[in-house]
Amino acid sequence: MTGTNDGNAVRRVKALAFDVFGTVVDWRSGIAHEAAAWFAAIGREDIDAASFADAWRGLYQPALEACRSGARPYTRLDILNRETLEQLLHTLGVDRVAVGDARLATLAQAWRRLPPWPDAVPGLVRLKQRLPIVTLSNGNVALILEMARRAGLPWDAILGADATQCFKPLPQAYLGTADLLGIEPAELCLVAAHHSDLAAARACGLATAFVARPQEYGGRRAPDADARQDWEFEVDSLEALADVFGC
Amino acid sequence: MTGTNDGNAVRRVKALAFDVFGTVVDWRSGIAHEAAAWFAAIGREDIDAASFADAWRGLYQPALEACRSGARPYTRLDILNRETLEQLLHTLGVDRVAVGDARLATLAQAWRRLPPWPDAVPGLVRLKQRLPIVTLSNGNVALILEMARRAGLPWDAILGADATQCFKPLPQAYLGTADLLGIEPAELCLVAAHHSDLAAARACGLATAFVARPQEYGGRRAPDADARQDWEFEVDSLEALADVFGC
Repeated sequence: MTGTNDGNAVRRVKALAFDVFGTVVDWRSGIAHEAAAWFAAIGREDIDAASFADAWRGLYQPALEACRSGARPYTRLDILNRETLEQLLHTLGVDRVAVGDARLATLAQAWRRLPPWPDAVPGLVRLKQRLPIVTLSNGNVALILEMARRAGLPWDAILGADATQCFKPLPQAYLGTADLLGIEPAELCLVAAHHSDLAAARACGLATAFVARPQEYGGRRAPDADARQDWEFEVDSLEALADVFGC
Repeated sequence: MTGTNDGNAVRRVKALAFDVFGTVVDWRSGIAHEAAAWFAAIGREDIDAASFADAWRGLYQPALEACRSGARPYTRLDILNRETLEQLLHTLGVDRVAVGDARLATLAQAWRRLPPWPDAVPGLVRLKQRLPIVTLSNGNVALILEMARRAGLPWDAILGADATQCFKPLPQAYLGTADLLGIEPAELCLVAAHHSDLAAARACGLATAFVARPQEYGGRRAPDADARQDWEFEVDSLEALADVFGC
């Protein structure tokens, strides 16, 4: 892939902040994998696991939006995931009481066990040698921490939602992260697979790195494909980003 | 050293939260080392670097207390360190204007460059294999992050002051950390070289691990020596703590 990828832009960056769901880990495969086993265990093999993953992810932005708009206070993603799961299971005719709390909690926390894209860990290990690597995710600390320990993601710090008490793409998510790092917005680069996320970061003055993840939606077009801009960096893996940064 | 160190207490712990200054890093040697070079550079070799380190550390709790009491809002330790440094240099007759901002900032951030005790990195590496290891320090994210990258401290997350927006020993520092990790206070163990810190953690329901650091004050008696209690775990290094936890 192409992009500016120029030396001046590289030299300005003092830290890299990563979107996580879709950029670093493959939520669709991970959720589908766990859901398939879970539905089999309750005798509902008729439910397509990949469609279920898409439907669950579809409830994600509306749940965040309720917090972003001020309709409800900031609420951790672990809790929102549990709520949207119950909502979705209801529409699928799954009896929440028969399933039981423990089994429900297991699936609700499947987001903590998502698999990294194959290039993620080697790419992050290389990038970390040169720059601080932090999360700038809408996931809460407990979720991102368990995911990191399972997958071997070597974050220097888990920032984002809990740290700034808000969700992207609100400006405070980006500006608050730079502030916590003690650097200027222009010195922080958001790394994300989503044009809408990068556009909001750029509006706050951050540098932007797009990572193409054509399989995020199982090969279908991304919902924010039209928000594409000419980002400072454009790569197709975190290993390629490490190349760009000379790591 | 002795202590309960029993298997039941070990099994209850789901995460370890570490005090940093004095417990993981040697602030007195680190500050004295940087101060000696700094005073030499401005022609003030007459100032004793170790006494300077003690005096600077002596201004630490009063600065935090202003925030804890509500007299001023939560303020990052990087900023408080800079303020107490200026205060101390004034009493030593160092001309702040002649010194200049850049040189002042360098010494103010010496807390980001403190050396770990020799057992800290190997102990943390072992402990991390079994349990999440997070900071529960009054240091801000940017300070603890730079320290971690320089010293190779492999934290799973940087929690504490910025994350809870308050300073130890306020209860919210301990309770807020357990809450961010999604665990009960009793499932979180504070690891600290200071009895006063451990006492406050215990009052909040946390488990407690004391690490003896007899050289923290250059061999002198710790100011909170009288606050000693019978902690769940008592060790003389983080490697010994890894032994206790079977890592």
